[in-house]
Amino acid sequence: MTTTILGLGLIGGSLAKDLRAKGLASRLIGVDSNPAHAAQALALQLVDEVLPLEEALRESLLILVATPVNSLTALLPAILDQIRPGQTVIDLGSTKGPVLQSVAAHPGRARFVAAHPMAGTEYSGPAAARSDLFAGKCCVLCNAADSAPDAVALAEQVFTGLGMQIVHLDGQAHDLHVAYVSHISHIASFALALTVLEKERAENRIFELASGGFSSTVRLAKSNADTWIPIFEQNRDHVLDVLDEFIQTVSRFRTLLIKRDFQTFDQLIRQANDIRRIID
Amino acid sequence: MTTTILGLGLIGGSLAKDLRAKGLASRLIGVDSNPAHAAQALALQLVDEVLPLEEALRESLLILVATPVNSLTALLPAILDQIRPGQTVIDLGSTKGPVLQSVAAHPGRARFVAAHPMAGTEYSGPAAARSDLFAGKCCVLCNAADSAPDAVALAEQVFTGLGMQIVHLDGQAHDLHVAYVSHISHIASFALALTVLEKERAENRIFELASGGFSSTVRLAKSNADTWIPIFEQNRDHVLDVLDEFIQTVSRFRTLLIKRDFQTFDQLIRQANDIRRIID
Repeated sequence: MTTTILGLGLIGGSLAKDLRAKGLASRLIGVDSNPAHAAQALALQLVDEVLPLEEALRESLLILVATPVNSLTALLPAILDQIRPGQTVIDLGSTKGPVLQSVAAHPGRARFVAAHPMAGTEYSGPAAARSDLFAGKCCVLCNAADSAPDAVALAEQVFTGLGMQIVHLDGQAHDLHVAYVSHISHIASFALALTVLEKERAENRIFELASGGFSSTVRLAKSNADTWIPIFEQNRDHVLDVLDEFIQTVSRFRTLLIKRDFQTFDQLIRQANDIRRIID
Repeated sequence: MTTTILGLGLIGGSLAKDLRAKGLASRLIGVDSNPAHAAQALALQLVDEVLPLEEALRESLLILVATPVNSLTALLPAILDQIRPGQTVIDLGSTKGPVLQSVAAHPGRARFVAAHPMAGTEYSGPAAARSDLFAGKCCVLCNAADSAPDAVALAEQVFTGLGMQIVHLDGQAHDLHVAYVSHISHIASFALALTVLEKERAENRIFELASGGFSSTVRLAKSNADTWIPIFEQNRDHVLDVLDEFIQTVSRFRTLLIKRDFQTFDQLIRQANDIRRIID
C-alpha cells in the first residue's frame, strides 16, 4: 500500500522504518515542511521519496500525520478537503481534544482516525528514528465510532502490525490519562533538571555525584521544546489539574519533613511502592 | 585480605560479589542482624561464612559497613571500640553528617574512612545484589584528612578496584550534593507515583497508557522505605532546602500554564535541555 508519512521526525521516521521492515507499506512517501529534515530522511533511506503534500496525497491510500500537535488543527481539515473516498488519514498526536474538534464537522470526518501510539524517546528529528520503537506498547484510538469501520480496521491493522496493543478511549479521557502518565512526568523532569542546573552555578561539582537514579528521573528533561510546547498548550487544563495534585503531594512530603513526621513519610513511601505493580 | 561486610543487602551483597570476582578479598565474612538475610546471603554464596559481629571483627583486616544510615551512628563507635591498630573500617552510607559526628571524638577515628559509592538500584535485600554495580560510578570519600593515610589508601584501592572514580568532599558538601542529585529525585518519584496511583482509584485504566517515559520517571518510587527514611531523617535540612527550590520551579511552570505564557515555558524547557551536557 502506498503510504505517505507527514513529519519525518522521531515518530514519523520510526514508523517508516517499521512499516518497511514489516512489509506494511509497498511505497513510502515522505512530506516535511523542513527541507533539512526531508533531505536527512531521504539520506537515511527512511522513505523512498519526498514529495510536496498535494502530490503525496494524490498517490497514497494511507496518510499518516506525525507532525507537532499544533500543526494538526489546520493540517487535518486541509488534508480531508483533498482526499478521495477509500483514502485513510491517521494522526499520531499526543493530544486529542483540539484535533478531534478541528475535524468534527468536516464532511470527510469518517476517513480520519485519531491515534496516539504511546511510544517515544527524549530525542527528536529524523536521526532519532529507530526500529521497534512501537513494539509491545499501547496505541490509543480515540472516538473511533466517528470514523468509517474500514478506516478503523486499517488503523488497527497498521498498529497491531507494529506489535502494539489497541486501546479505545474517547478524546477527553485520553487527554486526561496522558496528562497523568506522560505530561506531568515531563514537567517534573524539567523542574528537577532546572533545580540542579541552577545549583550548578554556585556548586560547579554538583553533577559529579549524579548516578543512575538521577539520570532516570531527569531523562525526559532532554525532550524537545518544539514537540512539547504545543502539547502543553493543547492539554493545558488537564495538565494544570494534575500539576496541582502533584504540587500538593510534593508539598505534603515537605510538611512531613518540617514536622519530622517520618512515620507518615514511611507510610507514603510504602504506598508509592505500589507502583511496582505497574512498572517492571 | 580477610574482609567483613556488615549488612548483606543490595550494597553489601553487590560489594561481596565484586570483591570476590576481582580478587580483592581472600575470605569474606558476612554479618547481618536479620537472620533471614544472613541465611539468604550464605545460600547465594555472597560470603564464605556468617559470624557474630565481635568474632568477625577479630578475624578481619577490613570492615565494610553497609547497613542503613540510622544504624551507623551507634554501630561505628562500637566497632571502633573493638578494633586493633592496622584494621580499617569503611562505611558506605548515603548521608555523612551524623556519621562523621558520631566518631569525630573517638580515639580510633583515624581507622575509619567515610565513603559513599554513588551506585544503587531501586531494589533491596541480598537477592538484589548484583555484579558490576559500582563500575564506572563515582565514590565519595569524606573528611579523609581525619583518617590515617594507610586507611584512605586502602579505601581508594578497594573502590578503584571496583572500577570507581574517587571524589573527595567534606561531609557537609557531600550531604548537600546528594540532596540535589539523589534525594530530591526520590521525593519527586514518590510524589509522581502517589499522584497517579491516587487517580487510579477513580480511573482504573489510567496506567494502560503508561510507557517508557513514565516508567523512567517513577522508577525510584519502588525504593525501599527502610533504606530511605533514615536518609531523609539524617539529611532533612538539606533535603528541605532543595525541596523548596523544586516546589518553586514546579510552581513556576504552573503559573506559566495559568497565564498561558508559553514563550517563557519554551525558554525553561530549552534551559532544562542543558541537562544533555550531564547525562547520556
